Amino acid sequence: MELTILGCYAATPRTLTNPTSQVLEIRNRLFLIDCGEGTQVQLRKNKIKFSKINHIFISHLHGDHLYGLIGTISTFSLLGRTTDLHIYGPKGIKELILIQLKLTESWTTYSLFFHELESKESEVVFEDQKVIVKTIPLDHRVYTNGYLFQEKPAERKLNIEAVKQYDIHVAYYQKIKNGSDIRLDDGRVIENEKLTFDPIAPMSYAFCSDTAYNESILPIIKDVDVLYHEATFLDSEAALAQKTKHSTSKEAATIALKANAKHLILGHYSTRYDGIEPFKTEAATIFPNVLLGDDGRSFEF
Amino acid sequence: MELTILGCYAATPRTLTNPTSQVLEIRNRLFLIDCGEGTQVQLRKNKIKFSKINHIFISHLHGDHLYGLIGTISTFSLLGRTTDLHIYGPKGIKELILIQLKLTESWTTYSLFFHELESKESEVVFEDQKVIVKTIPLDHRVYTNGYLFQEKPAERKLNIEAVKQYDIHVAYYQKIKNGSDIRLDDGRVIENEKLTFDPIAPMSYAFCSDTAYNESILPIIKDVDVLYHEATFLDSEAALAQKTKHSTSKEAATIALKANAKHLILGHYSTRYDGIEPFKTEAATIFPNVLLGDDGRSFEF
Repeated sequence: MELTILGCYAATPRTLTNPTSQVLEIRNRLFLIDCGEGTQVQLRKNKIKFSKINHIFISHLHGDHLYGLIGTISTFSLLGRTTDLHIYGPKGIKELILIQLKLTESWTTYSLFFHELESKESEVVFEDQKVIVKTIPLDHRVYTNGYLFQEKPAERKLNIEAVKQYDIHVAYYQKIKNGSDIRLDDGRVIENEKLTFDPIAPMSYAFCSDTAYNESILPIIKDVDVLYHEATFLDSEAALAQKTKHSTSKEAATIALKANAKHLILGHYSTRYDGIEPFKTEAATIFPNVLLGDDGRSFEF
Repeated sequence: MELTILGCYAATPRTLTNPTSQVLEIRNRLFLIDCGEGTQVQLRKNKIKFSKINHIFISHLHGDHLYGLIGTISTFSLLGRTTDLHIYGPKGIKELILIQLKLTESWTTYSLFFHELESKESEVVFEDQKVIVKTIPLDHRVYTNGYLFQEKPAERKLNIEAVKQYDIHVAYYQKIKNGSDIRLDDGRVIENEKLTFDPIAPMSYAFCSDTAYNESILPIIKDVDVLYHEATFLDSEAALAQKTKHSTSKEAATIALKANAKHLILGHYSTRYDGIEPFKTEAATIFPNVLLGDDGRSFEF
C-alpha cells in the first residue's frame, strides 16, 4: 500500500503548496482522493499514470478539494481515454461537472459514472475482489465524507511441503487456500493450519478531511493501519478550529489514539504558519507514530 | 504598457507549461485576459497583486482558457476582497460560475458583474477615461472573441516657454491642452501647435486566441502596436490547423503583416513540439518583428 500526497494545504493553491489531492495505490488499484486545482499537474510531477486512475473519491464540494476535477476529466479526454471513470462524491457533483462539460461543449471520450452520496451513515461505495471502500461521515460546514479503504483478507498461503507430505491432490489446493481442513483417504482430518501459512495481513487506510473533532467516526476507523486526519490548525487556534469545523493537530492525534490507529499522517495545514514541524510536535504529545504529510511525499506501508 | 504572459500553451497544463492567461497593464489599469487552470498560482509567481485586477476578459469557453476562473474568484473571496469584479465572456459564463458557487456553497465577499457577449460584430465592452476595450470576433470551433485594448489619446503637452512668451493666463491652459488655438487680447490668434507638444502616442494591444486564419479581423486591429496572435501549429501541420480552427505561425505573421502591426507576439503553442524557436523562425519569413511569448515572460512597450 502506497500513499502519495499530491497536495495537503488548506484553502488556496500557492507557488509552492497545493490544495488537497492524494493517490492511494492498494492491491494494484490506483484511487485518486480529492482533486484541488492543479491536481493534474501534480499527477504529472509525481509520475502517476493518468490511465491507471479509474476511481476518484471527492470528500466534499469545497473548491480546495474539487476545482481540479473538471480539468482532470477534460485532460483524460484530450489523452484519448476510453476506459470508464467512476466519480464518488456528494450529491450535486454530477450537475457541477455536467454543466461545465455542456457549456464548454467538451464531452468525454469515455463513459463517466457518478456515484452521488447523501447518506449520513457509513456505506460501502466500492467493492471488488481485493478492496472495499466505505464512507466515513465527517462533521464539516458542508456535507462531507472521508473514505476507508480496506484490503480484503488474502487467501492463506499453501505450505507446499506439508501438502506433498500428506499426498494431497492438486484439486484440493484452492479449498485449502480458502481455509478448509482436509479429510484424507484414510479418514484422518488434517487441520488447515498444518497445510497453510498466514496470509499477509490486510491493510487499511482512512482519509478524514475536512472535519471537526468527531468521535463518532471511531467505530468505523477502529484499528486502521494508516489514518490521514486533517490538522488545519495548531492548538493556539483551537477556537478557530471549532468555529470553522476543522481540527487541531492535537485533536487529530486524539482521534488516532482512540481509534487505535497504527500511524497518523497529518495534513490540510492552514497556510498561516511558517512551517509544518510544530504540527508533528503537538500531535506527538498525544500519539507516538505521527508522520507529516507534505506535497510530493510518498508513504509505503 | 506592459504585457505579462502567465501561460501560453495549448490544451492541458503540464509540469512546466501553463494554459492561456495573461495580464495587461495599460495606463495603470490591470486587465486579466483568459484564465486557464493554475492562473492564480501564476499570478503569485509573477508577483501580480490580486487586488489590482478588477476586470477579467475570457475569450471562449474552452477549459484551457477558463478552468482557473472559479478558483481565482474563490481565492479573491478568501482574501477578503470587497471591490467589484467584472467578468467579460461568452454567454453561458455567468451560469457556469454561479452554479459552481451555489453547489460549493461559497458566495463571494464582493460584487461580481458578468458582461455576457453574443454579438458577432466588434463592440465596445469597456470604456473609462483612459482606456477602451473592444471585442474582436474570431473564427474558432466555439463562439470566441479576441479583445482590442486601446489607450485613449492623451491631452497635448503644454509648451510652458511659449505660453509664457505670449503671456497667456493659466485659466486657458486646459483649453490649450485639449487642442484649442488661443486668441490674444490684441486679436492675434496663436495656433495650438505653437503652444503645445505632441502627446505620447496612444498604444494599442490586440489579443487574438483561439482562431483560424481570419482576414475579417484586419479592419479592427489595423495599425495595432502589439498583436498577440495564436500560433498553435507549425507550417507542417497546416491541415490540422485548418481542421481544428487554429492558426499556424506563418498565418499569424500574415495577419500581423496585413494589419500593419508593429510587433507580433506568438503563443498558444501545441505541446507536441520540443521547442518554440521554430515558431519564430517560420513567422519571421513573413513579418519582421516577431516576439516569442512564453510563460513568465514580460514585454514592455
